[in-house]
Amino acid sequence: MSSTAGQVIKCKAAIAWEAGKPLSIEEVEVAPPQANEVRVKILFTSLCHTDVFFWEAKGQTPVFPRILGHEASGIVESVGEGVTDVQPGDHVLPVFTGECGECAHCKSEESNMCSLLRIDPDRGVMLNDGKTRFSKDGKPIYHFLGTSTFSEYTVVHVGCLAKINPAAPLDKVCVVSCGIATGFGATVNVAKPKKGSTVAVFGLGAVGLAAAEGARVSGAARIIGVDLNPDRFEQAKKFGVTEFVNPKDYDKPVQEVIAEMTGGGVDRSIECIGNVNAMISAFECVHDGWGKAVLVGVPPKGAVFQTLPINFLCERTLTGTFYGNYKPRTDIPGVVEQYLNKELELDKFVTHEVPFSEINKAFDLMFKGEGLRCLIRMEH
Amino acid sequence: MSSTAGQVIKCKAAIAWEAGKPLSIEEVEVAPPQANEVRVKILFTSLCHTDVFFWEAKGQTPVFPRILGHEASGIVESVGEGVTDVQPGDHVLPVFTGECGECAHCKSEESNMCSLLRIDPDRGVMLNDGKTRFSKDGKPIYHFLGTSTFSEYTVVHVGCLAKINPAAPLDKVCVVSCGIATGFGATVNVAKPKKGSTVAVFGLGAVGLAAAEGARVSGAARIIGVDLNPDRFEQAKKFGVTEFVNPKDYDKPVQEVIAEMTGGGVDRSIECIGNVNAMISAFECVHDGWGKAVLVGVPPKGAVFQTLPINFLCERTLTGTFYGNYKPRTDIPGVVEQYLNKELELDKFVTHEVPFSEINKAFDLMFKGEGLRCLIRMEH
Repeated sequence: MSSTAGQVIKCKAAIAWEAGKPLSIEEVEVAPPQANEVRVKILFTSLCHTDVFFWEAKGQTPVFPRILGHEASGIVESVGEGVTDVQPGDHVLPVFTGECGECAHCKSEESNMCSLLRIDPDRGVMLNDGKTRFSKDGKPIYHFLGTSTFSEYTVVHVGCLAKINPAAPLDKVCVVSCGIATGFGATVNVAKPKKGSTVAVFGLGAVGLAAAEGARVSGAARIIGVDLNPDRFEQAKKFGVTEFVNPKDYDKPVQEVIAEMTGGGVDRSIECIGNVNAMISAFECVHDGWGKAVLVGVPPKGAVFQTLPINFLCERTLTGTFYGNYKPRTDIPGVVEQYLNKELELDKFVTHEVPFSEINKAFDLMFKGEGLRCLIRMEH
Repeated sequence: MSSTAGQVIKCKAAIAWEAGKPLSIEEVEVAPPQANEVRVKILFTSLCHTDVFFWEAKGQTPVFPRILGHEASGIVESVGEGVTDVQPGDHVLPVFTGECGECAHCKSEESNMCSLLRIDPDRGVMLNDGKTRFSKDGKPIYHFLGTSTFSEYTVVHVGCLAKINPAAPLDKVCVVSCGIATGFGATVNVAKPKKGSTVAVFGLGAVGLAAAEGARVSGAARIIGVDLNPDRFEQAKKFGVTEFVNPKDYDKPVQEVIAEMTGGGVDRSIECIGNVNAMISAFECVHDGWGKAVLVGVPPKGAVFQTLPINFLCERTLTGTFYGNYKPRTDIPGVVEQYLNKELELDKFVTHEVPFSEINKAFDLMFKGEGLRCLIRMEH
């Protein structure tokens, strides 16, 4: 056991005191893990749009002060009662959704939407006692997505931790814990394009490019990237995207443009924006008879998907995925192995890096739309 | 070769002279089959809603005078040039959609939507020469769905004929050629419920009950029938339906009623009405994480399917099927074998029978909503 086990740890964390205000790096106290909890020393974390979304908290339940962050990698510091799956020293990826192993979803081969540990952005406390493990000057600091990785130490439910091969470099596999698994899994676990097929990807941010990477790994012959920003095409080529369509360049719906390019439609499409019109295009651009579209992006509240039923009756399929249909504990270690086996490329997703003390620069880069992932290196 | 091969055959046919007027049984001339065509002696046919739909021709292109009929069984009388798959004497089921064997759809394992021979209700002529094989007093009588089985003899493209085991009783397997394959295939080929699962069927007409039969054969533990007509429940029990929901009995959406009955939703649902609100209910009543809904019924033009994207993002799947995803030539002989092996029950679908001379009685029964299928026995 580490010398800190069972003790409160004082460490640095980036606190979001209120919506939209820059994070403030301050000393916090991190309580020891309780039953079924694990305290993790975070080594790397990265910024994802979801952090920014709940930091802005527009139209969301505001939960502040809060420690954001959910895409990360680290090492187990200590474990709470009843934890047997991991032990101090294990390399882990915290995941914003969990796998209790006991519920109907965990027992289903098809679902990863654990009833107990499913993502809940409104919850700022741990399940065990409904309280926080973070505090400052005796006052609670709330959790985020059960991960709160913008802290040198955090406490996570054991069901939200993927134990990975210690040979994997933690700075590289950090991005697997959210965005890359989400996009890559959408393709390889759900869309499942056959070798030689044609795949359209809507949205060429990190998640969309991970979906393209999934298509490349699956042997797709044509990967059509769709984005309103033409600057993204050059970068997208590294991820296997072979053709680029900017809907702004046409005066007809992009689904018609794609159908004409492909003799009736693509075999598979993946929507990684969260825009309901893009979802409709992504569905309607697949080929009749066998086409399948997969929704990944989360749209604003109130947006309604609509299409003519004949589009389904002509044997098109529409489905959605959550975290690429990966079960965090069961499947994510295998994704890390794919990286180690050089089947999946990860290095190209990290375009920027900052030390933890400059975490607000990562927010600036995201607002400018620069790069894909900004790695934040903790400074223990 | 039969003595009539190569000759014009004079026989009785039920002619629809104009929209909505009773059929008139008259003598017509049936020309010999041309290249890739087959002339079939019809022994049994039955009335399906699709016949009535195009007979009424409301909002449809009117194609008259026409010989309707597409659900049937018969024996090959003679074959045209290039036909090698069937020969005189073979037992066949004509099918309203075809399988050319050469197009991308026929070569795909997933599709049965043949590019060449896909259903085309507006076409009243044969593909080979754009003319009819039926005439009366030298004037053309148009075809319907490439089958026109309300005639003692008809001419069909070889790609629209399933050659079946001659041991199969033609009066029983007649219904496989349209409605029963459509509903049964929707379940066993597309919804694919697992043993012990829960299936909802929307619409308890012949197609819906065939979908229920598919669920019964698949070993579903609960089959929930949804219909506005409570008289249909007693009959539905014979098809394995275990529970009945009448949306009229509740003041909340039927998808909520079903979710409450099933702890979150059914594993699979099948819409066999063609009502867009029922389609939405059928989709929204499946369980998150693994639920799949299959659309079978064809809605009126202009109806729009709509739902919130989150219903997809929570890992629900929506798809549609055409003719139960069966390829007519490749797969339908196997469905007949399933009947012969007593895996699939067919006898219970035929609730009425009339001689050909009384074909208009079959229309009356359908308008009254009585029974499932009315078998029409040809009187050669």
